[in-house]
Amino acid sequence: MIAPLERRSLKRLRHKPVPPPLRLVGGLAFLIAIGTGLLLLPISGTRQLTLMEALFTATSALSVTGLSVITSVRDLSLWGQILLMLLIQIGGVGFMVVAVIVFRLLGRRISFTDRIALSDSLGLLSPAAIVTLTRRVLITVITIELIGAFLLYIHWRTDPRLSEGQAFFFALFHAVSAFCNAGFDLFTGTPGFNDGIPRDSVTLFVLGGLIFLGGLGIPVVADLIAYPNERRLSLHTRITLLVVSILVVGGAVGLWLGEAFDKDGALVGQPLDRQIIVAVFQSVSARTAGFTGIANFEQLTPASQLLLIALMFIGCAPASMGGGITTGTFAVLSISLWSYARGLPTAQFGGRTLATGMVRRAAAVLTISLFVVLVASWLLVMTHDTTLDRAVFEVVSAFATCGLTLGFTDELNTFGQLVIIAVMFWGRLGALTIIIALARQSAAPQVVTYPEEQILIG
Amino acid sequence: MIAPLERRSLKRLRHKPVPPPLRLVGGLAFLIAIGTGLLLLPISGTRQLTLMEALFTATSALSVTGLSVITSVRDLSLWGQILLMLLIQIGGVGFMVVAVIVFRLLGRRISFTDRIALSDSLGLLSPAAIVTLTRRVLITVITIELIGAFLLYIHWRTDPRLSEGQAFFFALFHAVSAFCNAGFDLFTGTPGFNDGIPRDSVTLFVLGGLIFLGGLGIPVVADLIAYPNERRLSLHTRITLLVVSILVVGGAVGLWLGEAFDKDGALVGQPLDRQIIVAVFQSVSARTAGFTGIANFEQLTPASQLLLIALMFIGCAPASMGGGITTGTFAVLSISLWSYARGLPTAQFGGRTLATGMVRRAAAVLTISLFVVLVASWLLVMTHDTTLDRAVFEVVSAFATCGLTLGFTDELNTFGQLVIIAVMFWGRLGALTIIIALARQSAAPQVVTYPEEQILIG
Ligand SMILES: [K+]
Ligand SMILES: [K+]
Repeated sequence: MIAPLERRSLKRLRHKPVPPPLRLVGGLAFLIAIGTGLLLLPISGTRQLTLMEALFTATSALSVTGLSVITSVRDLSLWGQILLMLLIQIGGVGFMVVAVIVFRLLGRRISFTDRIALSDSLGLLSPAAIVTLTRRVLITVITIELIGAFLLYIHWRTDPRLSEGQAFFFALFHAVSAFCNAGFDLFTGTPGFNDGIPRDSVTLFVLGGLIFLGGLGIPVVADLIAYPNERRLSLHTRITLLVVSILVVGGAVGLWLGEAFDKDGALVGQPLDRQIIVAVFQSVSARTAGFTGIANFEQLTPASQLLLIALMFIGCAPASMGGGITTGTFAVLSISLWSYARGLPTAQFGGRTLATGMVRRAAAVLTISLFVVLVASWLLVMTHDTTLDRAVFEVVSAFATCGLTLGFTDELNTFGQLVIIAVMFWGRLGALTIIIALARQSAAPQVVTYPEEQILIG
Repeated sequence: MIAPLERRSLKRLRHKPVPPPLRLVGGLAFLIAIGTGLLLLPISGTRQLTLMEALFTATSALSVTGLSVITSVRDLSLWGQILLMLLIQIGGVGFMVVAVIVFRLLGRRISFTDRIALSDSLGLLSPAAIVTLTRRVLITVITIELIGAFLLYIHWRTDPRLSEGQAFFFALFHAVSAFCNAGFDLFTGTPGFNDGIPRDSVTLFVLGGLIFLGGLGIPVVADLIAYPNERRLSLHTRITLLVVSILVVGGAVGLWLGEAFDKDGALVGQPLDRQIIVAVFQSVSARTAGFTGIANFEQLTPASQLLLIALMFIGCAPASMGGGITTGTFAVLSISLWSYARGLPTAQFGGRTLATGMVRRAAAVLTISLFVVLVASWLLVMTHDTTLDRAVFEVVSAFATCGLTLGFTDELNTFGQLVIIAVMFWGRLGALTIIIALARQSAAPQVVTYPEEQILIG
């Protein structure tokens, strides 16, 4: 028997709205559970996958990371590969969009809270017109992917190592994998491709373009599409394009210096135009697609390892297919630093003041990201016989949902796989989502204000 | 002939006050030049030091880092060793205090601007009574060092490997080196001490105590000294003590886990009490004294390498003998992160609101620190045949003026030595000093305010 008071509190418990961050966590976990289950079906594999293999693959696909403990083309059936592609697509375009569609199919109206949650996840600045926008985004995404797939198919169908059917499916799969910045590939394990994806200039150019567009993020793409009519780009779009340009060029120059002039470098002895294409592709891909443009990736020079760790950590634009602390955080921190050094009262850039609270958010993103990378790396080196650089590279790659690896993924034991799964999960949700879900929210607007006090900082 | 207008602007140029950050940079550079010159004198060495050796040693001593390209006890004469001790003392207590004394000796009154500059460097919150405080600080420092030296002398005089005179001078030298968090030692190279400093528990206890007090920083020590009268500790002191406790205990537990349970660990097979003393000492020393409590330091497990990199990077309290981003920055970032996650409007801790602008400053410190470490590490791996972890360890150690090394210092070429010298210089001045000195200061109070605009962040 339940006393009236208890019944009332039970009722309140039942009706207490789940806060958006927690809903995001639950949603991704739910999708991963479904994906794991589907991958475990006998028809999905050419052999029965283990639970850990299926869980790792589903997480990696839905978080568009691309780290893999299986060889997709060999261990998955065609149906399994199609499933993988769908998981990548869902993970990339965002399970939020899926949620919208599900809501529509169920005929339910989207509540205002849901709109807010969606706009949080997609990074949209206004919750209005979300359904319209979602439809437009989906059409844009599929159009871009189909164009990419068509170009890849035209190019690959003449490759003697691929059958007509393979060329068709590979083109589709890799267009999705590239645009979603997932970095999964089917070439590794296919006879004739001992070294993974083909690295001819046309392939690198098409894949690089898809990755680049996917990494700009939905708000930027939407802004660019609207530009011919509106003739105005938002501050967000301008900063994103600027930062991405700096990162791509800087990364490419750095990789070129590191690999073309070191005696063990991967680009030594190649013609200059080829060096440039590979360096630019690898720079684009590092944030955060994870395709390797450089063959023998595990023999990367330490200079390039460091550079790639930095690029991966910064990552892509917010609300894009990629992860990392995001170019937005990077821009805010840089602008704030320079404004502070100049003695300006606020962070300013291009005739605009950065809104109050943005520096606080950016600092929080950086702090929690460093913390997660540090803890996960420590757990890995404690439990594996490996060097520090390989472990840190792997963790940053997982956190940024990048998927590049110095060959460490194959050596992970079950505990290590669980750590990487957790980091991919955290990374895909965005640096702050889990910590906000974990923190006890301050319930009511604060009425007490505490007195201010200075403490010294470095 | 100079036109009147030009003459006027020349005059204005001559009288333009040098901004405090630039004065700090110039002051440290001046001291390093003097130190280098004195070390180059024939009486300073048992052999003639090269310019690079003298420059590196002077920078390392004045920045209380402790990285060394010479073996102090073998390559320096007794006079040279005394000079080294004086450089450490000057670098540790701060060339600002020296500046005050010089001003007083010259009979000039200290201007208000100078007081502000001093209070910036010493991290004091109010510029009042700086001369009195300086005198009190000096007396405190010398008292603590003499007590430490006395204890070390009592303990070391019975060591058959040391003569009476050696025991006396070594006690004095290492008390200064420990309290100033410099980490230079004279044992490396002394017959009978193949493995550097003695690591018996008494030595570790005394050195650890000196390091700990030196690492708390002048404001905290002053606050603690005043406590019996005032019965109140500032927020700064409370946060510093809390953060330092967490870091020491966390670091010690982490090192113990990493070194006592790994098959290659340095603490394997030792009795538990010994394991605890060594782990605590190494944890205290890592931020940022740089004495090695663990023998065969270069064989540290990767887990401990990572932990030490993190501890070094965080470093000591602001305005202390140590470097790093400082415990203050670490505390502000952590508090701000947690307050943000909880949805609070401001960063709050212990019934106090952190003053506006502190998060901005802390974010700036973290950003520029990561940038410096990244660039310097990249320069090192580009120009040396080494692994990434050893280079990053060395750079963080130099930036935090810590002086621990995985044996990489000996392998540095001239370019590498210059990079490390620059990083030590930057680190001792504090993360922001140089960037503020470099930035063109906004001349007048800003009258234009730019409109606010949001950009997305991760
Ligand atoms: K990826
Ligand atoms: K030191």
